[in-house]
Amino acid sequence: MSHYEIDPNTPRVTAELADWIVGLRAGDIPDSVRREGLRTFVNWMGCAVGGADHETVDCALAAVTPFAGKTTSTVLGRRERLDAPHAALINGISSHVLDYDDTHLKTIIHPAGPVASALLALAEMRPVSGRDFLTALIVGVEVECRIGNAVYPPHYDRGWHITGTAGVFGAAAAVGKMIGLDAQRMRWALGLAGTQASGFREMFGTMTKSFHPGRAAQNGLMSALLAEAGFDSSERVIEAPRGFAHVMSDKQDWTEILGGLGEHWEAGLNSYKPFACGIVIHPTIDGCLQIRDEIGDRVRRIASVKLTAHPLVLELTGKRSPQTGLEGKFSVYHAAAAALLRGDGAPTAFTDEVVRADDIIALRDTVQAEASGDIHEASVKIDVTFDDGTTLHKHVERAIGSREVPLTDAQIDEKFTRQSALVIGDDDTARLLKASWALETLSDVADAARASVPTAAGQVA
Amino acid sequence: MSHYEIDPNTPRVTAELADWIVGLRAGDIPDSVRREGLRTFVNWMGCAVGGADHETVDCALAAVTPFAGKTTSTVLGRRERLDAPHAALINGISSHVLDYDDTHLKTIIHPAGPVASALLALAEMRPVSGRDFLTALIVGVEVECRIGNAVYPPHYDRGWHITGTAGVFGAAAAVGKMIGLDAQRMRWALGLAGTQASGFREMFGTMTKSFHPGRAAQNGLMSALLAEAGFDSSERVIEAPRGFAHVMSDKQDWTEILGGLGEHWEAGLNSYKPFACGIVIHPTIDGCLQIRDEIGDRVRRIASVKLTAHPLVLELTGKRSPQTGLEGKFSVYHAAAAALLRGDGAPTAFTDEVVRADDIIALRDTVQAEASGDIHEASVKIDVTFDDGTTLHKHVERAIGSREVPLTDAQIDEKFTRQSALVIGDDDTARLLKASWALETLSDVADAARASVPTAAGQVA
Repeated sequence: MSHYEIDPNTPRVTAELADWIVGLRAGDIPDSVRREGLRTFVNWMGCAVGGADHETVDCALAAVTPFAGKTTSTVLGRRERLDAPHAALINGISSHVLDYDDTHLKTIIHPAGPVASALLALAEMRPVSGRDFLTALIVGVEVECRIGNAVYPPHYDRGWHITGTAGVFGAAAAVGKMIGLDAQRMRWALGLAGTQASGFREMFGTMTKSFHPGRAAQNGLMSALLAEAGFDSSERVIEAPRGFAHVMSDKQDWTEILGGLGEHWEAGLNSYKPFACGIVIHPTIDGCLQIRDEIGDRVRRIASVKLTAHPLVLELTGKRSPQTGLEGKFSVYHAAAAALLRGDGAPTAFTDEVVRADDIIALRDTVQAEASGDIHEASVKIDVTFDDGTTLHKHVERAIGSREVPLTDAQIDEKFTRQSALVIGDDDTARLLKASWALETLSDVADAARASVPTAAGQVA
Repeated sequence: MSHYEIDPNTPRVTAELADWIVGLRAGDIPDSVRREGLRTFVNWMGCAVGGADHETVDCALAAVTPFAGKTTSTVLGRRERLDAPHAALINGISSHVLDYDDTHLKTIIHPAGPVASALLALAEMRPVSGRDFLTALIVGVEVECRIGNAVYPPHYDRGWHITGTAGVFGAAAAVGKMIGLDAQRMRWALGLAGTQASGFREMFGTMTKSFHPGRAAQNGLMSALLAEAGFDSSERVIEAPRGFAHVMSDKQDWTEILGGLGEHWEAGLNSYKPFACGIVIHPTIDGCLQIRDEIGDRVRRIASVKLTAHPLVLELTGKRSPQTGLEGKFSVYHAAAAALLRGDGAPTAFTDEVVRADDIIALRDTVQAEASGDIHEASVKIDVTFDDGTTLHKHVERAIGSREVPLTDAQIDEKFTRQSALVIGDDDTARLLKASWALETLSDVADAARASVPTAAGQVA
């Protein structure tokens, strides 16, 4: 089986990564990274509750509820309870469904959905302290982002939704860490996770996009639990000739996975979306909101808008005439119009109503977008022409929410509150926000999950 | 989003396939194909029961049982019961774990595992007649084999375990047919299935290989049920630029999917393994068994064995020194030695004990295998040299179990009985075999599932 044999120069990537996961102690993680892990958790919780009453979640719940097992685990932001794997699925969906979650900017992975959804669902069944939970969360994010780095961008370019494909590794690693797998079982868990890596970008614009992080959470969780039960797997899933990196990408950079493990932290580079849509539209929304602030009522006098952006922006969000709120998230044209006319980039800017509003359509139809190889992915140039022929130019170098202009804790609070309050009301939101920031002090993190359940007074939907 | 737009010359593959699935009636299927569908079902049932007490099944059951929901469905060949999706998972595993199941020879897909496991588990929850069940089974097999044909062999060569990747489509199509999805929901079901297509060949030789058809069954089942609940998806998962065939293969032959639908039947071409290992070793085992019959005691005087086979045989089953029974299935060297010395190609030839037996190891070490581009995948040339210098040559053109030399119904019975009796005993096996052949007469196919549960007398393990 000659060409099946692994190149002897290939490092034992899966095994070395598993060793690192197993050996890591809470105290090995720098304070700044733990702090970013906490912000990751808080932002994720707000998004999961914010998305909890979405139709996508209703449909998924309707399908899985007849098969629910022991209801140990919370469906965040709702009264229903499910078994842990199903709760992981639903919470992974709700945390992503508004396209409002966190982003690892190097890979466009949304790290928390797969990892935190798997962890918290199981933590309600097997109690764990906030400190150990946070360690596992950071490990999971680190693993998925490093694996993503090793194969990005060719992996993504081929059509894989990397939040699903890398996320399932992160969920398995995190859960495996939380339940204390040994090194061999950790290798198996990664093997079981990798062989389930899936999710096409073709699904963008449908409910199935947010199914991906949900399923990655559920499958990663079960990978760790199968390995725990002795279910064996390949011990070299990442690097093998017929393994993840070779089968699903044209790039395999092992140093992205093994280089500086424990020294350099990808988990410390997470970012949080200020706007409820794909990250590549954020500079456009940021710039249009700035223009709106500057010109006031003159937004009604805009004759045309020209965007100059990186080619990826048009590739990912080039929907010319979106018909639904969901499609609007994949339309840089819509996002520009909604930011200019409504001053909005929150979930409320991406409803069916707004997408179909006459004034939005009229302005959207005047927006032109041009791809330029000279401009950074995180930048945009906006040229507005008014009906009197005057023009205005705005160059956004880096949008709010980027690593250069990160959301402050207060801005995370505001984002959390604005979306959560729509689902569970102000009082329950305040209680949940407090419990979420207190994660590391909790002796049982299940308390945070249960704090998301709306009280009688809090139920909005 | 220019290069995201689908080529206008690409047919609407997913939609046309969905239309065909939805429109097909039981009477549209030729009798010969229905008969092959029945043989597919009987063979699958025997394999699932035969594998039911395998360690792999024990491990998987241990991991999933804490999450089991309402126990509507039978774990075939065992007393445990599970919810339908978990039963689909476990029965898919047990039906494949002995590498003894059915094979669509053009693609090396093992069709029944994903499809029948999904269908029967749900049928115990939503009663269905044997006639409608068989129609759905044939639809599922047809869909997965046609999708496999469209991308094989580049898809398989890249490292995908095609039984998992194509199987999930088959399971979704079959369940969707059985529960009566409309055309739009059938497109969604196929979309949800395709976006979960996964499974690396790297897992061969571990428990995770048989996890693939199990998970394909479970995921395909849930795809159909999610679509039924209104969970939407892409409606062009097969043919889209960022969909299944483009992302996961270098070949996309749509005529393999849409050509002659309902006229030419891939489901009529299923075959059943006479030996409990990869199909590519079958000619070698067949030839070695023939040699053993011819030479009797002289098997002990063999000095060396030379095999000349298609390169794929060595690629897939080139393990020189297997250490476990499972690894033995991936060693043409071991298979030759066990056939010559034990006269065995059944599961009993692939136990840890046999793989580690001194006489087997000694003969195995004398076996040489040479790849030749001039020889068909389904053929082998065997040259035996005895210790007195004499030689014997055997050319197997097509092995037993191939389309040219198919197993008779009686041979299927014998195979069924031999493996099932080891798990549930002779009497229970006889009862189950009868119920399985009677499938089309059953008003509720749950009766067949329940017939597999060992009685007090029948419990062997």
